[in-house]
Amino acid sequence: MGKTNPGRFFEDYSIGQVIRHAVPRTVGQGERALYHALYPARHALYSADTFAQACGLPASPIDDLAAFHVVFGKTVPDISLNAVANLGYAEGRWLKPVWPGDTLTASSEVIGLKQNSNGKTGVVWVRSRGENQHGETVIEYVRWVMVRKRDPNTPPPETVVPDLADALAPERLVVPDGLDFTRYDFDLAGDPYRWGDYAVGETIDHVDGVTVEEAEHMLATRLWQNTAKVHFDTSARPDGSRLIYGGHVISMARALSFNGLANAQMIVGLNGGAHANPCLAGDTIRAWSEVLDKAETAAPGVGALRLRLVAMRGTKPFALRGEDGKYLPDVLLDLDYWALIPV
Amino acid sequence: MGKTNPGRFFEDYSIGQVIRHAVPRTVGQGERALYHALYPARHALYSADTFAQACGLPASPIDDLAAFHVVFGKTVPDISLNAVANLGYAEGRWLKPVWPGDTLTASSEVIGLKQNSNGKTGVVWVRSRGENQHGETVIEYVRWVMVRKRDPNTPPPETVVPDLADALAPERLVVPDGLDFTRYDFDLAGDPYRWGDYAVGETIDHVDGVTVEEAEHMLATRLWQNTAKVHFDTSARPDGSRLIYGGHVISMARALSFNGLANAQMIVGLNGGAHANPCLAGDTIRAWSEVLDKAETAAPGVGALRLRLVAMRGTKPFALRGEDGKYLPDVLLDLDYWALIPV
Amino acid sequence: MGKTNPGRFFEDYSIGQVIRHAVPRTVGQGERALYHALYPARHALYSADTFAQACGLPASPIDDLAAFHVVFGKTVPDISLNAVANLGYAEGRWLKPVWPGDTLTASSEVIGLKQNSNGKTGVVWVRSRGENQHGETVIEYVRWVMVRKRDPNTPPPETVVPDLADALAPERLVVPDGLDFTRYDFDLAGDPYRWGDYAVGETIDHVDGVTVEEAEHMLATRLWQNTAKVHFDTSARPDGSRLIYGGHVISMARALSFNGLANAQMIVGLNGGAHANPCLAGDTIRAWSEVLDKAETAAPGVGALRLRLVAMRGTKPFALRGEDGKYLPDVLLDLDYWALIPV
Repeated sequence: MGKTNPGRFFEDYSIGQVIRHAVPRTVGQGERALYHALYPARHALYSADTFAQACGLPASPIDDLAAFHVVFGKTVPDISLNAVANLGYAEGRWLKPVWPGDTLTASSEVIGLKQNSNGKTGVVWVRSRGENQHGETVIEYVRWVMVRKRDPNTPPPETVVPDLADALAPERLVVPDGLDFTRYDFDLAGDPYRWGDYAVGETIDHVDGVTVEEAEHMLATRLWQNTAKVHFDTSARPDGSRLIYGGHVISMARALSFNGLANAQMIVGLNGGAHANPCLAGDTIRAWSEVLDKAETAAPGVGALRLRLVAMRGTKPFALRGEDGKYLPDVLLDLDYWALIPV
Repeated sequence: MGKTNPGRFFEDYSIGQVIRHAVPRTVGQGERALYHALYPARHALYSADTFAQACGLPASPIDDLAAFHVVFGKTVPDISLNAVANLGYAEGRWLKPVWPGDTLTASSEVIGLKQNSNGKTGVVWVRSRGENQHGETVIEYVRWVMVRKRDPNTPPPETVVPDLADALAPERLVVPDGLDFTRYDFDLAGDPYRWGDYAVGETIDHVDGVTVEEAEHMLATRLWQNTAKVHFDTSARPDGSRLIYGGHVISMARALSFNGLANAQMIVGLNGGAHANPCLAGDTIRAWSEVLDKAETAAPGVGALRLRLVAMRGTKPFALRGEDGKYLPDVLLDLDYWALIPV
Repeated sequence: MGKTNPGRFFEDYSIGQVIRHAVPRTVGQGERALYHALYPARHALYSADTFAQACGLPASPIDDLAAFHVVFGKTVPDISLNAVANLGYAEGRWLKPVWPGDTLTASSEVIGLKQNSNGKTGVVWVRSRGENQHGETVIEYVRWVMVRKRDPNTPPPETVVPDLADALAPERLVVPDGLDFTRYDFDLAGDPYRWGDYAVGETIDHVDGVTVEEAEHMLATRLWQNTAKVHFDTSARPDGSRLIYGGHVISMARALSFNGLANAQMIVGLNGGAHANPCLAGDTIRAWSEVLDKAETAAPGVGALRLRLVAMRGTKPFALRGEDGKYLPDVLLDLDYWALIPV
């Protein structure tokens, strides 16, 4: 093929290898506005400088998930171009807010390898990091994917399966410098519920739905410089459909969760996530949440909620798995994250 | 239901009540670029800093209608989530330009209430205001909507119907500080016609048309954080269609009106408006205008035109109502506004 | 018709005439973000301030093609509103980068006229220029179009056919002030190939494809304030289809060419171009390139490649013309340009 990027195959990864991903990206006011056009995002801290400043921050940061998507997009040509499946996430942490004007670069370290018994594919675990122009890590997360082997006859590598936390312990969460929710304006934020109003086990139907269009998910996915063919090219899949980037579903569901979780302002931890079923244009995405855990933080007025966020195609919330233990066909996403909320 | 916003019902409003709307919004270069991507907007004062500066302003402001949409969007969860119909606008005034970087908040005061004779719905009049981060009102307008009652058996409130001007008197229009059209560059603006060239009663066919797409109106409506379900969710209406936000039609028609009214630069007053028929994706929007009135202003070189702006789905301009006095089926919008134009 | 712009007809042009185009435009972070949402653009110099700074520039410029589109869009109402065909480009040069915040205006000088033998149409050659707010020319190019006559009976003008270079000589290319590729980071740029790795005659299949949607090309075309009816209005063409702006295809193909030409960072010359066949929504655009020439420049570490960029609808690269010498039906674009690349 010569000069085009063929992507990496299972044999191309080795434990401890660090891959520096290409194409740094400066994010700014334009990406911020597009995020609001693409998703019904209304969390006040990402909508208004004044609100963010009243919470102790210098300005309104770029949405946490936008930062995640930019870093994720950079990893695609090196990690998932030949991936058969995106298997999971763990130990994701947002370490610094991303400000308009920041430039992000990304790198990934290979931390696990396991050839599948069929000999044709293997699982690769990477810890990916996004850095800003000051060399500070702004986000890190573990992702594992199933990747094709170039040649089924190459011998398997030594199996290394990383030991990953089921969920981040609250003390590992990083609260942004200066964040202070003691003078939080609940009226302006859009709903009165605070940390103390949520109980572990509580479920919330976010009610609203968005029917998704091809043009929208492609705009989003390109904006994050994610190059996976299946999102853009109707000839890439046998049925002629374009698969919607899983991150588009994450952002849509998170934005919909405003209605019931308006004060769960900042995402600081990603404990896990599964793209349960493919999402296609024409699907109407709805979302529901479950409170999985609660924790205090050292920051003034700031508590943390561990939340399950489920995106679904249907209209019946709170159903997740069938009797066989598998995700129901209408479930698109099952995400487990930590968010900061006023106590 | 619990923590999600059910919207307000007719019983929830009382005369004099002031509702502070949620989710402040900082608007900037990104919203400006998106406005130009969503609408064929070409009025030079909103396209170029240099042109705005030559007209005495510090920079090119955010489009007047974008400012309107941001404020309107904030009012939706409190005013029109359970609205059966958006009945009218009056006494809209743009009091200060909105500059990139400004943060807008919105509030509404209930100024009228009238239960309908069926006992199931009522009309609510509110005066909504948008404020910038300095506490200055940048826009205000009256809107009235028909809202469902929660319980048909609750007794009706005392009827209060506000006394609203049919049209703003010219002396109530506010010209932005510093605006000066004495050195206006008609070549750069795109057409030679000035205040003196327009006659009351004159009609203008704006000729161009735009066939609208689902992805576009949803991007626009989300950008203004308007959450009404009918714009996004194909299951929200019995026929499976998504209703296009009326403000999308207003902006489209206003942008199309450049061709014939290129120098009607700034909108300063909204006298009234009706969304005559629903607009759906696939419709081709065209527009025509009628000069309703003319007025002088105290600002150097600045005159005002009162214009009727009609958006239609068909190709035959200047037809508005049938013999029965009702809007013709192809009429989408009938808007009455004041704009500033060089004398 | 009155106050709307009817466009110019063949009789309205005369040799030496300079047309100052309307509607100046300030371009900024918003246009930059939209460019990345509309096209899979990944050239690092346009993606990150830090990368551009490491190459000696003060910041990441607005994409060269975005600058081209803005200037081109301004010329449409005066040059091609009544055009039957867009026949060609020549002698295009990028003379200064466009920075976020710059305001562009455009003008065109008529440099050629030739009535067609049918007496109903004629060819008009113009040299168009884009200027920034400092009065510096940032871009210039020659374009020729076939335009209808208003009246077939008007006598033809004296025929003047300009003498245009088949390709810009390398010494006419302008390298941006300060550009220095001696410390170029190939890892961050996304591919290791430098000037010396490309041979004249070499062809590159860029592999990726994008299926285009109506909403996307209209967003793009509006963003550049291009008003040609055929792009927006399904009633403008007999078959009800919307013709995709040729510049949309140029930008899509150029962005796709990253995969194989990631280091061909800056476009500095446009030698020629043909929109070989119309592109419609639903087409899947792919691209291939051919190295036509190579040249050195006086700037440190900076070489130039002359490239043919072909956009096609099919999946078979490297086929361009049939035995009859005509473009094959699947060829959408044949563009000839100079780009700067590290030596």
